[in-house]
Amino acid sequence: MSKVVAVVGATGAVGTEMIRMLEERDFPVRRIKLLASERSVGKRLTFKGEEVPVEQLTKTAFNGIEIALFSAGADRSREFAPPAVADGAVVIDNSSAFRMDDGVPLVVPEINPEKIREHKGIIANPNCSTIIMVVPIYPLHKAAKIKRIVVSTYQAVSGTGQKAIEELREQVLLALAGKPVSPKVYKYQIAFNLFPHVDTFQPNGYTKEEMKMVNETRKIIGDYSIMVSATTVRVPVFRAHSESVNVQFHRRLTAAEARQILSKAPGVKLVDDPAQLRYPMPIEATGQGDVLVGRIREDISQENTLDMFVSGDQLLKGAALNAVQIAEKLL
Amino acid sequence: MSKVVAVVGATGAVGTEMIRMLEERDFPVRRIKLLASERSVGKRLTFKGEEVPVEQLTKTAFNGIEIALFSAGADRSREFAPPAVADGAVVIDNSSAFRMDDGVPLVVPEINPEKIREHKGIIANPNCSTIIMVVPIYPLHKAAKIKRIVVSTYQAVSGTGQKAIEELREQVLLALAGKPVSPKVYKYQIAFNLFPHVDTFQPNGYTKEEMKMVNETRKIIGDYSIMVSATTVRVPVFRAHSESVNVQFHRRLTAAEARQILSKAPGVKLVDDPAQLRYPMPIEATGQGDVLVGRIREDISQENTLDMFVSGDQLLKGAALNAVQIAEKLL
Repeated sequence: MSKVVAVVGATGAVGTEMIRMLEERDFPVRRIKLLASERSVGKRLTFKGEEVPVEQLTKTAFNGIEIALFSAGADRSREFAPPAVADGAVVIDNSSAFRMDDGVPLVVPEINPEKIREHKGIIANPNCSTIIMVVPIYPLHKAAKIKRIVVSTYQAVSGTGQKAIEELREQVLLALAGKPVSPKVYKYQIAFNLFPHVDTFQPNGYTKEEMKMVNETRKIIGDYSIMVSATTVRVPVFRAHSESVNVQFHRRLTAAEARQILSKAPGVKLVDDPAQLRYPMPIEATGQGDVLVGRIREDISQENTLDMFVSGDQLLKGAALNAVQIAEKLL
Repeated sequence: MSKVVAVVGATGAVGTEMIRMLEERDFPVRRIKLLASERSVGKRLTFKGEEVPVEQLTKTAFNGIEIALFSAGADRSREFAPPAVADGAVVIDNSSAFRMDDGVPLVVPEINPEKIREHKGIIANPNCSTIIMVVPIYPLHKAAKIKRIVVSTYQAVSGTGQKAIEELREQVLLALAGKPVSPKVYKYQIAFNLFPHVDTFQPNGYTKEEMKMVNETRKIIGDYSIMVSATTVRVPVFRAHSESVNVQFHRRLTAAEARQILSKAPGVKLVDDPAQLRYPMPIEATGQGDVLVGRIREDISQENTLDMFVSGDQLLKGAALNAVQIAEKLL
C-alpha cells in the first residue's frame, strides 16, 4: 500500500509544503526522493525525523518512483514529467504545463475526484487563485448554477516563491528607512505598494493568471457555460491569497441559504459574522487547510447575485495540500 | 477677490493636505485660520512661509470666515458647520455628514460643477473611494451610459488618518522582528494583512463605505438608474487607493474607444501599456492630482462591459484637492 514518492522542486516554497503535508497527513510513504535543480544538490531536508539529501532532477531520476509531485515550474514539468511517466510514475503536477490538455484531469478533490481515474500518467493541480475560488463557490453552483463570476484578487508574494518573500521583507525595511528600493523579483516595488499584474499579459488584455481563473474554473466545475472575468493583483502580504468574488446564479440564493450550504461544505470554513467583525483575512487563513469565506451578501445591484470575500493559504489548499489530497485519492 | 479661509481639522492627514493645496494652487487667501480640537491648540503650521497658530474649534470661531474647509469627521461637521454657515461662511465639508442631504450639492468639479451654485451654505466633498472611481468612469458614462458597476477596492491606511499610518509602520517592524502586534486603530493587524472592512457594517451586509460608493456615485453623476455593488478592503499601503472596476454600459465601448476618451479626460491620467508593463499603482499615484487608469479591456464574460484598474491619491483628488477645486469654482 505504501508508495515511493518523489517531490520535484523540493526546496521551493510549495515543495517544502508538499513534504510537510505528506508528513502531517501521514501519507503512506515507503521511500521519499527529493529532487531539485543542480544548485540545491547537497542540501538536506527533514522528512519524518530523518535527513534526506536533495538529489539532482534528471530524466533518469524517476526509476522506481510511483508518485511524483511536481512543483518546479511549467518548463521543468514539460521536460521531466514525460520521462517520469515513462518510468511508471503518476505525476501530480502543480504547474500550468498540462492543465488545459484534453487527456489530463484537472482536479480539486472536493469537486471532481472522479476525474482522477481518467489520468494517463499526469494529473494537474489547478492554479492557486482558481482553487481558492472554486472550493467555496462549487457548493453554491450545485444549488443554483453559476452564470457569471467577476473576481478581483489580493495575492500574496509567496505565490511567486521564496525570493519574493525575501524581497518584500528587505524592501519594507529599506522603504521605512527612507532608502532606495531596487526591485529584483518584481518589476516594481512591492513594499507598501500593489500592482494589477500577475503572470504575463495576453493579447486580449488579460494576464495569464486571469485567464487561468477563467479556463480552469470551467474545466474543474465541468460547465463551459460559466462566464468569468478576473483581475489579479499582487499585494504586500506574505502568505494566503484573498479574493473579492461577485457571483451571478441562474436562480436566487439568499445569503442565509449560501451560509447554510457553506457551513457544511468540505474544504470551506465559514467566517462570516459582521456583528462580531469576523470575516476572512490572510493572516487568519495562513496555515489553514480550509478556504475561509465570509462577507456573504445579496448583491444590491443585480438579482440572483451574491458578493463574498475569501482567503485561503495558496501554498496549502492552493497548491501542496490539494496535490497531496489528489495523491491520497490515488491510493 | 481674496478670501478669509478656515481649515477645520488642520492637523489631520487631509487637513494638512488642504493647507498645502491652497498654497500650491495659489488660492487667493487673504487670511487663514487653522482650527482643530483642543489637544492641537498651540501647535504651529506653516502657510506660505509664515507660521500660523492652531486655534480651538468652537462655534464662535467662524466670525469673518468666508470659506471653511472641514475635515474633522462627521460628528464635528454636524456640530460646527451650521454655526459656520450662520456666520456667513460657505462650508466645503469632507465628511459624510451632509453628502446625501437634498439641499447639499455633492460635487466633483470635473463632473457636476454646476451644482455648486445651488448650495445653501454647505457643499459636500464626496467619499475618497467614490471620487477616485467616478472621475475616470464619468467620461465613459457620457459616451455609453453606465448600467452597472462591480468594484473592489484596495484602500491605503492614510484614509483612516495619521494614527493608522503610524500603526502600519510600527506593526511592520514588530512583525518582521517576530514580536507580537497589538492593533489599536484597526481591529486586526494591518501589517502584511488586509481586511474586507472599511467603516461600519450595515443591516444589508454592506459596509457604510460600500454604500457611500453606491449612493454617492448616483448623486454625483445624477443618474439613479446606475446600479453599483462595492466591496471595500483595507490593504497595507500607506497612501493612494486602488480599485478594480467592472463597468457594464448600455452600448458597446471598445477598449480603444475608452482609452481615446480617457486620454483627453480632465483629472485622469491614462497609464495603460501592458507591453511596457505600465498600469496604475499606488506608489505612482501618490502625490499626483490625477487619477491613474489602466488595465482597460473588454470583459470577456459579458457584452458592453469593460474592466479597468484605477489608483488615486485619496488625500489629494480623493479629499483635499477636490475640496480646494470646489473652493476655486466658488470664487
